[in-house]
Amino acid sequence: MKKISFRDTGLKYALSPYDPPVIHVDPGETLVIEVEDAPSGQIRKKTDRRDRRSIPFGNPVVGPIYIRGAEKGKSISVSIIEITPTIGQGVTYFSEFNEEYVTGTPMLKFLGEKFPREPKICKIRNEQVYFSNELIIPYRPMVGTLGVAPHPEGEALSSSMLPGRHGGNMDLPDICPASTIFLPVFHEGALLYIGDVHAVQGDGEISGTAVEMPAEVKIKVDLKDEAFTWPMIENRDEIMFVATTSGGISLEDAIRTAFLELALWIEKKFGLNRFDALMLCGQVGKIRIGNLWTAAAKIEKKYLDALK
Amino acid sequence: MKKISFRDTGLKYALSPYDPPVIHVDPGETLVIEVEDAPSGQIRKKTDRRDRRSIPFGNPVVGPIYIRGAEKGKSISVSIIEITPTIGQGVTYFSEFNEEYVTGTPMLKFLGEKFPREPKICKIRNEQVYFSNELIIPYRPMVGTLGVAPHPEGEALSSSMLPGRHGGNMDLPDICPASTIFLPVFHEGALLYIGDVHAVQGDGEISGTAVEMPAEVKIKVDLKDEAFTWPMIENRDEIMFVATTSGGISLEDAIRTAFLELALWIEKKFGLNRFDALMLCGQVGKIRIGNLWTAAAKIEKKYLDALK
Amino acid sequence: MKKISFRDTGLKYALSPYDPPVIHVDPGETLVIEVEDAPSGQIRKKTDRRDRRSIPFGNPVVGPIYIRGAEKGKSISVSIIEITPTIGQGVTYFSEFNEEYVTGTPMLKFLGEKFPREPKICKIRNEQVYFSNELIIPYRPMVGTLGVAPHPEGEALSSSMLPGRHGGNMDLPDICPASTIFLPVFHEGALLYIGDVHAVQGDGEISGTAVEMPAEVKIKVDLKDEAFTWPMIENRDEIMFVATTSGGISLEDAIRTAFLELALWIEKKFGLNRFDALMLCGQVGKIRIGNLWTAAAKIEKKYLDALK
Amino acid sequence: MKKISFRDTGLKYALSPYDPPVIHVDPGETLVIEVEDAPSGQIRKKTDRRDRRSIPFGNPVVGPIYIRGAEKGKSISVSIIEITPTIGQGVTYFSEFNEEYVTGTPMLKFLGEKFPREPKICKIRNEQVYFSNELIIPYRPMVGTLGVAPHPEGEALSSSMLPGRHGGNMDLPDICPASTIFLPVFHEGALLYIGDVHAVQGDGEISGTAVEMPAEVKIKVDLKDEAFTWPMIENRDEIMFVATTSGGISLEDAIRTAFLELALWIEKKFGLNRFDALMLCGQVGKIRIGNLWTAAAKIEKKYLDALK
Repeated sequence: MKKISFRDTGLKYALSPYDPPVIHVDPGETLVIEVEDAPSGQIRKKTDRRDRRSIPFGNPVVGPIYIRGAEKGKSISVSIIEITPTIGQGVTYFSEFNEEYVTGTPMLKFLGEKFPREPKICKIRNEQVYFSNELIIPYRPMVGTLGVAPHPEGEALSSSMLPGRHGGNMDLPDICPASTIFLPVFHEGALLYIGDVHAVQGDGEISGTAVEMPAEVKIKVDLKDEAFTWPMIENRDEIMFVATTSGGISLEDAIRTAFLELALWIEKKFGLNRFDALMLCGQVGKIRIGNLWTAAAKIEKKYLDALK
Repeated sequence: MKKISFRDTGLKYALSPYDPPVIHVDPGETLVIEVEDAPSGQIRKKTDRRDRRSIPFGNPVVGPIYIRGAEKGKSISVSIIEITPTIGQGVTYFSEFNEEYVTGTPMLKFLGEKFPREPKICKIRNEQVYFSNELIIPYRPMVGTLGVAPHPEGEALSSSMLPGRHGGNMDLPDICPASTIFLPVFHEGALLYIGDVHAVQGDGEISGTAVEMPAEVKIKVDLKDEAFTWPMIENRDEIMFVATTSGGISLEDAIRTAFLELALWIEKKFGLNRFDALMLCGQVGKIRIGNLWTAAAKIEKKYLDALK
Repeated sequence: MKKISFRDTGLKYALSPYDPPVIHVDPGETLVIEVEDAPSGQIRKKTDRRDRRSIPFGNPVVGPIYIRGAEKGKSISVSIIEITPTIGQGVTYFSEFNEEYVTGTPMLKFLGEKFPREPKICKIRNEQVYFSNELIIPYRPMVGTLGVAPHPEGEALSSSMLPGRHGGNMDLPDICPASTIFLPVFHEGALLYIGDVHAVQGDGEISGTAVEMPAEVKIKVDLKDEAFTWPMIENRDEIMFVATTSGGISLEDAIRTAFLELALWIEKKFGLNRFDALMLCGQVGKIRIGNLWTAAAKIEKKYLDALK
Repeated sequence: MKKISFRDTGLKYALSPYDPPVIHVDPGETLVIEVEDAPSGQIRKKTDRRDRRSIPFGNPVVGPIYIRGAEKGKSISVSIIEITPTIGQGVTYFSEFNEEYVTGTPMLKFLGEKFPREPKICKIRNEQVYFSNELIIPYRPMVGTLGVAPHPEGEALSSSMLPGRHGGNMDLPDICPASTIFLPVFHEGALLYIGDVHAVQGDGEISGTAVEMPAEVKIKVDLKDEAFTWPMIENRDEIMFVATTSGGISLEDAIRTAFLELALWIEKKFGLNRFDALMLCGQVGKIRIGNLWTAAAKIEKKYLDALK
C-alpha cells in the first residue's frame, strides 16, 4: 500500500492543475495520506497562536494525486476507509481570520471587540474527543477539504479555502469513513488533493473552526464512467449531491441546485421522472449544511431501491 | 378533554391579536384540534385543482386559543402528543403559488413553462404514506404552522404563511409528536394558532408542498416562566432554537442567529460561557432547514447534561 | 381637494383588507394625507426615547383609501405630487428594534454591546436637512411605506413593516415627488395605505432608520387597466420594477425577479423579445436597493422610446 | 510611456503570486495595457460561439505588473485614464457557462431549456455602442477585472473569475476613466492584473455578460501609505468601499461590510465618530451592485468636505 505525507510533499495551499503530481496511483488502489492540520501545525498547546507571518496560508492539502485513467468529463470516486489522528489531539479556536465568518460582517472591528483568542487543545483517545474535562464528544472524523484540480472556468485555480464543483473545502461531516465521494474530472489524472481533517465538526462549523487535527487518511480511489456536475456522496444509507454558494448563487439557491441535481440523477438512474423525483425529495429529502457556503441534498437509498 | 374544530371556528388565514379567542384553556390542559389541510380541502382527488377564486387564501389555521395566565414577556409551551389523519390521505403538488419558491425567480414565467399540475393523492395507512404504488414513505406527521399572535412590531399581524419570532409557518419536521415548542408571548393569553399539518415533509420542503393532510392534533399547553426571543423546541434528545429569514436577514444570518441564541441559552442555563458554548456548537451543533426561510440550530441534550 | 389626517383616522400598523376605508376617492382625484412619523411621534427631542409599552407598534400608516373603480386583477397608480414636513424636523436614531437589521445577527446581544441611543433631531429648512451643524443634506423627501391591502395568499394581512407584491414598506428613495407608483389591486377599491415618510434616506437605509418625519403627502390616484405582479414605478426618466426578499427568495433572487419582470414588460409594451430585453438590461439596467429587503430594477425611458 | 499587450504576455486566467511579472513600473508611472475580451477573442461575428475545448478558461487578464516600492500591508492606487476599444466592436451573449448566474439554479437544465445562443455583435463608434439598429447606448467603458495577487489566506490563488479583498472580477461600472482604485498589497510589488473590459455594463450584469470588448487601458499606478481591508474607489464626486460575497457572507452582509468599512474610514480620516458616520451613510449612502456578488457603498465627497 502506498503512503504519502506532507512531510515529503510540503504543505500546499491550492488545488491547482499546474502543480506536478506527488504520486501516481491506479484505479482501485488504496493509499494512506498523512496530512497536517488546518492551522499548519502552529497550535499544539494553549499558549500557541497562529503566526501568519511565518505561514501566511491556511488549510494545507496534500496532492495532487494523479489517478491513472481519469479522463476529463468522467469522474473519480474516493472511498474514505479510515481516519487516524497522528498526535492524539486536535485544536479548535476562534480564528482571527474567521471572525467575519462567525459574525457575517466586520461588526467586531466596528465595535472594537475581539473573540477570546485562547485555543482549546482537545485530546483524542478511545474514540472520544475531550472538548473539556466535562465535555466529551464522540470521535466523528471527517475530511474537510477533498477535491480535484478545479473546473477550468470560474475556478481555474482554487485556493484550498474555496469549494466548488471540483469539491474542495466543503466541510461536510458526511465525508467520513465508509463514505464514497464522486468528483467530476476536469484535468487528465483528476489531480486529487486532501487535507483539513476534523476529529469532529458540527453543521455549519458555526464557530469558524472544527476540532482540527493532523491525521492519516486511508482512501481507495477509482474511476467512474459517469459525468457529474457537482460532487456526489454515497454512504451505506444515503445518496447526496453537494452544491456551494458562489458568484450570485445564494445559500437558498445552492440548496435548490443540490436537489435539482439529485432529482435529475434519480431520473437518469431509476426512471422516476424528474418532477416526481423532486416531489419525492420534498417529502423525504434531507439537507446538510457543511460550512455556511456548502449544502448537501440527501435521499435515503431505500427509496431508490424501491424504484428498481 | 376539550376539542375544537375548523368546522366550528372557520378557516383562519392570519395569526392576529384582533381575532377573538375560539377557546380558553388552562395551563396544563390537553386539547384536540381538528385542522383542515393547507390547500383548504380543495384537493381530494387527482382531478382537483386549487380554486383561488372561491378560497383565495392558503394555509388555514385554527385559533386563537387563549391560554389563561400567559403573560407578555413570558412564554408558553405546546407539547405535541399525537397527530391523527382524519381522512386517511394527504396530497402533494406543485402549487402555482409556490412555483417561485421552487425556482427562486419567475424563470418559469419568463420561459413560458409550467410545472405539472396533477396532484399526488397519497393514502395514509398503517403508519405509511403511499407516495405511489412503489414508493411507500414512513408516516412522520408534523405541524407546519404553530404560532402565537405575533410580536407587535414588525409583524403586528401575520398571515399564516409567514413565520417569525412568534413561530408561524416554520415547516420544521421537528414539530412532531413527543416534542415541545416554547413560544414567546406577545399578547395576554398568548393567542395560539395551529394548522398546516403534514403527513411527512423533507428538509427545505423543496417541491413547495409536503404531504398536506387534514388532521387532529392533540396538544398539551402550559406556561413557562422564561423569556424567549425566538421559538425553542425540545424533544427527548435535543434542544433547538429557531430563527427565520426576514427583512435584511439572510439564511446564513438566520442560522447564525439560531446558534447565537442557543449559545446564550446554554450559558444562562448551564453556566458554560457563551463563547465556549458557541465553540461547542461548532463541534456538535446540527442544523435543520425547515422551509427555505426557517433554520433550527440544535444540540443534543447529553452534552448539556454533562455540564450539570 | 380632500384631506385626511392620522389625527382623525388614528395610527394604523397593518395594511389590512378588514379595516374599513377612511375615505373614498374617485379616479383622478388629488388628496392630501397627513401622516405621523415612523416612531409614532415619540421622538421630538434628544432626550426622547421610543416607549414601546405605550405604543408597541411602529411605522404607522394612514388608510385604507378606497379608490372607486379599482378592480381585482387590475392596477392603480399613485402619483406623488408633493411632500411637506409638518413640524420642520425629522429624527434618525439607532432603533433598539432595528439593531439586528444593522448587524444581521444578534451579535450585539452576544457581545453585551449596544449602539448609542441618543437620537439626532434634524431640522428641515429651505430644502435642507440639518444632520448636524456641519452636515447639511439636501432635502430629498420620499414615502417609505405605500401599499394596497395585500395579496390574499402569502400576505393575507401585512404589518406595515413588511413589503411584498402589494408594495408596503419598500423604503425606496424613488417613491418621491414627480414619481408614479403602479400597484396591483387585490381587493375591490385597492385599499391604499401611506406612511413612513423620510426627509432623506440612503440606499439600504443601512443604519436602520432614515430621517423620519411627520409630513403631508399630496397624491393623485388613478386606475390603470394593466395587471402587475410586482409594483412598477415611473418617473420622468426611468421605469423600474420592484421585488422584495421573502420566504426562500434571497436578495440576489429579488434582483433577478425585478429584472425578469422588467424584461417581460418591455416585451409586452415595446415588442422587443424578452431575451433581448434582458440582454439590454444587462447593459443599461440600474439597481436600487431600498432597504436590504427591497430591490428595484431600472431602465431609462430613452431606450424604450427608441423601440417605439 | 510603457505598453504591454496580451499579444506578448499571453492570456492569463489567474491572479497569482507565483506568476513572474511581465513588467516592472515605478510609482507615478503611466502605462498602456492591451487586453483581450472576456471570451478570449472567440466571438467576433454572429456565427461564432465560445469553444471551450480550445480555450477552456474565460476572463483573461494581463499581468502581473510589479509596482516598485509596493509593500505588504500598504496599498497601491490605479488611476484609470482612458479606455479605448481596439477593434471597434464588442459582444454580449448568453454564455452557456453563465446560465446559472442568470437563473440562480440549474432550472434551465431541469426544464430541458436553453437561452438563445446567438451573440450580439455591437459596433462601437463615436462614443456609442450599437446594441441593435434601434438601440444605441452611450459608450461607458469600464474595467471588469482589476486586482492584485490575492490575500494569502482564503484566496491564496484566485482565478480571474473570483473577486475578493484583492479586487478581481468586481464588474463595477465605477472602475472607469477618471476613477482611482485603491487596493491592499499582499505581496511585494503588488502584482497587478487587468482584464475583462466592458464598453458598457448595467448594474448586476444581469444577463451574465456585458458588451465585452478588447481594449487598450491607460492607467497610472502609484503607492498609497494606507492599509485597506477591501478595495476603495474614488472619483471626482464620490468615495466608495467595495465588498464581495464569499464563504458564508451573503449579499446583504457584503453591503453591510462595505458600509462599515466606509464608516470606519470616515472616522479615521475626518474624525466623525463611526456611529455617526454610519448614521450619515443611512441618509446619504448609495449602493452599487456590480455583478451579483459585488457591492460598493458610496458617499459623495461633498459631505466629507464639510467635515474638514
